[in-house]
Amino acid sequence: LQRTFSLHKAHSIKDMDNTFQLVRNIIPALTAKKHKGQDGRIGVVGGCQEYTGAPYFAAISALKVGADLAHVFCAKEAAPVIKSYSPELIVHPVLDSPNAVLEVEKWLPRLHALVVGPGLGRDGPILDSVKGILESSKARDIPVVVDADGLWLVAQQPALVHGYQKAVLTPNHMEFSRLYEAVLRGPVDSSDPRGSVLRLSQALGNVTVVQKGEHDLISDGQQALAHCCWLPWAPAPSQGSATTRPSRSMAALPPPPT
Amino acid sequence: LQRTFSLHKAHSIKDMDNTFQLVRNIIPALTAKKHKGQDGRIGVVGGCQEYTGAPYFAAISALKVGADLAHVFCAKEAAPVIKSYSPELIVHPVLDSPNAVLEVEKWLPRLHALVVGPGLGRDGPILDSVKGILESSKARDIPVVVDADGLWLVAQQPALVHGYQKAVLTPNHMEFSRLYEAVLRGPVDSSDPRGSVLRLSQALGNVTVVQKGEHDLISDGQQALAHCCWLPWAPAPSQGSATTRPSRSMAALPPPPT
Repeated sequence: LQRTFSLHKAHSIKDMDNTFQLVRNIIPALTAKKHKGQDGRIGVVGGCQEYTGAPYFAAISALKVGADLAHVFCAKEAAPVIKSYSPELIVHPVLDSPNAVLEVEKWLPRLHALVVGPGLGRDGPILDSVKGILESSKARDIPVVVDADGLWLVAQQPALVHGYQKAVLTPNHMEFSRLYEAVLRGPVDSSDPRGSVLRLSQALGNVTVVQKGEHDLISDGQQALAHCCWLPWAPAPSQGSATTRPSRSMAALPPPPT
Repeated sequence: LQRTFSLHKAHSIKDMDNTFQLVRNIIPALTAKKHKGQDGRIGVVGGCQEYTGAPYFAAISALKVGADLAHVFCAKEAAPVIKSYSPELIVHPVLDSPNAVLEVEKWLPRLHALVVGPGLGRDGPILDSVKGILESSKARDIPVVVDADGLWLVAQQPALVHGYQKAVLTPNHMEFSRLYEAVLRGPVDSSDPRGSVLRLSQALGNVTVVQKGEHDLISDGQQALAHCCWLPWAPAPSQGSATTRPSRSMAALPPPPT
């Protein structure tokens, strides 16, 4: 503990107490009154031949912050690998099948939130399926967190999330620039990071944008806030991604409906 | 330890001593006088494309509470994944083969007890095979614990276990309602949970029913008991299933014959 603090002098014990309290507010209390599934059923869309770690970290993090069930919808080849990381996950090898959208749609009514993008890759047919999955999720009013290559898809087709109030985009620095240039047709104003996040959110019809960085910048198109309250022992946020840090995206969601 | 108790004030140290004693009574003593297999050879029937965690947890829990050998009989695709969770398990990729019943029957004479259902799924041909395996186990007088989708099968065909004194059904809240409605052709009387468990057991010819919940309810058709003595650090029973908790089903069995 001492070492943790000496490495991160900026954080006082008071800071850490505050952070713990924030985390406690998000994690549902363990109680014998509930049955499995009531505290969150999360779906992660991602995982391909190259990338199997990212969807695993997204799904296992959802469980670690209190969700009851985590499904991963990935390409066939990625499934046995992701399954082998943890017996806690339910992994569906469907994302590169011709009827991927239907296969995921079967599960959507049982899911409280979807994370789209970790380890997705940029294969054309898979992205076409993901487009269908996003549209289907919107039609069902399911909260969607878009990260990683999901953001690449959104940069190609911003209409996919435009105006969807239950979408949360979580770009890092690079992903943010790409998305901003695609949507606002101009370079990011580096002298005004907070304004840039606000403008991107507005241009996307008030979709929530969380720009990950040293200070995370969050905007819903109405206001933009900076947040720097990371746990002192966590990797510096600007170095992180879905593959290296707790599922902040998930934690940012309100407790799912029961 | 202090934290464990402060989080679960309902449990005193005395309670825990009692629980430990119960567990001690169930787990066979480790002795050099016995050879591998004498303290229990367990078979788990389950594991399909989507679900690989549940049969793993059932089998590994059997080993952790003292059994010597645990076999898993699962679908071909699930086998390498379940194997990868632990080298302790013996995994047979036979459940979706046309001669699944024969393949499992070969092993039945060597097994002391069978767990049917964790991660089984609801594929028609597989359930047909499971039906054959259940009948074969009954013919050999092998104790059978039925859980998860095994209970779904029993709700469709209660005759499969009717009157079999060595069957133990372990439904959670949802599974209990489904089974009760299928067998007693009426809704569960929620004002009388203990009586409901007793009636289901009786209607099934005195099969043992363990309804999992905040307080587990257990009936052999003669009497119904409530049990709430879970280990303080275990997940709340009502949130658990074969996939998330120690193999209570296994623990409920008497020490297997040698």
